[in-house]
Amino acid sequence: MARQGPAGVAADFERAVWDAIDSKTKPVGALGRLEALAAQIALVQGTLEPTAERCMLTVFAADHGIAEAGVSAYPQEVTRQMLLNFLSGGAAANVLARTLGVEFVLVDAGVKGPAIEHPKLTSRHIADGTRNAAEGPAMTTSECHEALRAGRSIGGAGDHEVACFGEMGIGNTSSASLVAAKLLDLPVGELIGRGTGLDDTGLDRKRRVLEAAAARTPSELEPTEALRQYGGFESVMLTGAMMCAAEAGKLVLVDGFIATVSALAAVQMTPEIRRHLVFAHRSAEPGHGVVLERIGADPLLDLNMRLGEGTGALLAWPLVRAAAAMLRDMASFASAGVSGRT
Amino acid sequence: MARQGPAGVAADFERAVWDAIDSKTKPVGALGRLEALAAQIALVQGTLEPTAERCMLTVFAADHGIAEAGVSAYPQEVTRQMLLNFLSGGAAANVLARTLGVEFVLVDAGVKGPAIEHPKLTSRHIADGTRNAAEGPAMTTSECHEALRAGRSIGGAGDHEVACFGEMGIGNTSSASLVAAKLLDLPVGELIGRGTGLDDTGLDRKRRVLEAAAARTPSELEPTEALRQYGGFESVMLTGAMMCAAEAGKLVLVDGFIATVSALAAVQMTPEIRRHLVFAHRSAEPGHGVVLERIGADPLLDLNMRLGEGTGALLAWPLVRAAAAMLRDMASFASAGVSGRT
Repeated sequence: MARQGPAGVAADFERAVWDAIDSKTKPVGALGRLEALAAQIALVQGTLEPTAERCMLTVFAADHGIAEAGVSAYPQEVTRQMLLNFLSGGAAANVLARTLGVEFVLVDAGVKGPAIEHPKLTSRHIADGTRNAAEGPAMTTSECHEALRAGRSIGGAGDHEVACFGEMGIGNTSSASLVAAKLLDLPVGELIGRGTGLDDTGLDRKRRVLEAAAARTPSELEPTEALRQYGGFESVMLTGAMMCAAEAGKLVLVDGFIATVSALAAVQMTPEIRRHLVFAHRSAEPGHGVVLERIGADPLLDLNMRLGEGTGALLAWPLVRAAAAMLRDMASFASAGVSGRT
Repeated sequence: MARQGPAGVAADFERAVWDAIDSKTKPVGALGRLEALAAQIALVQGTLEPTAERCMLTVFAADHGIAEAGVSAYPQEVTRQMLLNFLSGGAAANVLARTLGVEFVLVDAGVKGPAIEHPKLTSRHIADGTRNAAEGPAMTTSECHEALRAGRSIGGAGDHEVACFGEMGIGNTSSASLVAAKLLDLPVGELIGRGTGLDDTGLDRKRRVLEAAAARTPSELEPTEALRQYGGFESVMLTGAMMCAAEAGKLVLVDGFIATVSALAAVQMTPEIRRHLVFAHRSAEPGHGVVLERIGADPLLDLNMRLGEGTGALLAWPLVRAAAAMLRDMASFASAGVSGRT
């Protein structure tokens, strides 16, 4: 028998995974996308008996200087108010995490105002929000690297198999639209939506502000430069966290538009993490579809949601858990004594 | 103030439900279909603080005489073998139910062969499978009524708020295609698919058998006659179970093609149960889309699944649970002190 290189071993293992799935007591393919998800988890974990029993959601919150330009339907103070709402357990992400058995961690990545001391709050406060990216770089190079490092240190920790990352920050769909435009060399106009619910006038203003902001720099930027020019402290931490969670062997459930843009930056920096990413849901924010297509992802859920906070990722967690359990625990035709096809 | 009739009270309550949802700390509509689901649960339970914490899956199994005509990719003995697989906990529905915290109940509605005594098996065995519906009525009128009654007695029991119903029976996509054709006055050819995985030759044979079976009776039948002529003991019990679960105030999570046809029969018999039904997933079986459209349903999930057993319903259960928790537990803008839109 010829010796096999790593590619051959990997291909053999992938065949073994699919043989195991196909041997389960169900018609071949009858569990549809749950089977592909099970295969992905098995390949990430390198076992035919994968486990996905523990999930953690980390929500990063920060303010955006570009909010001053009136690009959001809500005032900037809402970022801080929502941070407090997370701390008292009343936000959507808290409720869904509790309901679905997911641990919740909250990070102040750079929320404006006096420091908040709270036992449930992890402080990685880079600054009181970014600068206005319509006028100049959102952050300094050192702030950008500090945010990436903070994200990496948080994302790789813990013994959960599945990591969800969420974000909160008034103005961050604007930031994400600009980052995505520069990562994908697209006109920012193709990536703009109503965010938290702008009316037509607000949407026109957002478009003007973002087009002017995009015009400040070349049409395509390498990832750290795109993040430095237009990112938010929370979204840069998301990028770092996803990279390090993947490197730690976790599966990463990617939430909506903003999280997907952070994931895109992470994949451009370290392409090998792509196989760790599970795209949870298709957001109603129109730019999401554009970015998903470019990253080659077809999310599990399509529930017309557009909240962020990791809420879409949370709702996909039971599917991940079920997929792993299916492969690990279902009987095979042989073990159950069930006849095969005629 | 003018006195209001029931319609006015109901409309007022529905407005109160949506006001409560819109007051939560999220942009209006940002949780998309989860919000509509929460509203449905609130309306069914008649409260602004709905609960969906307990879910039960009941799987009905039975054999189909039409399997003799070679309409399935698997031999008829698989029904009985799968019953035993359910009893030992190795089928997909067992694994998903355990993983997602759903109680599992198994009913022998008419599986061929010697009676099975097992503490986990509920026997409502009507007969050793139906007769071949290609040649004559699948069951007698008294068998059909007995199956409906058995389903009703099972479906209304228990204190769970959410009920899933699944089925297992080789040949039952054929049976469901025929029932749906007669309920909807459609050519059966529009409702035929590969079931558990027929090849082209098998699909041609299934089409010929089903078209001949459909030709035995008028193009449209009233529900109990359609069930008697073409139904299965498991699918008739499903119809009865859904009716009674809804009448008991439960939310009913409707699984795939076969369960949706049973639901259609139930809705035709008692239209007021429609508001209790949540359509869980869009099956890969092509007839499902036709029936969903006629019943006016857009399922929550689309994962290319086609297994039955209630597996699609189980995967939608966490969404139902999350939707109820969202409405019950999320803070409002007022209670959390979060600013509204600018």
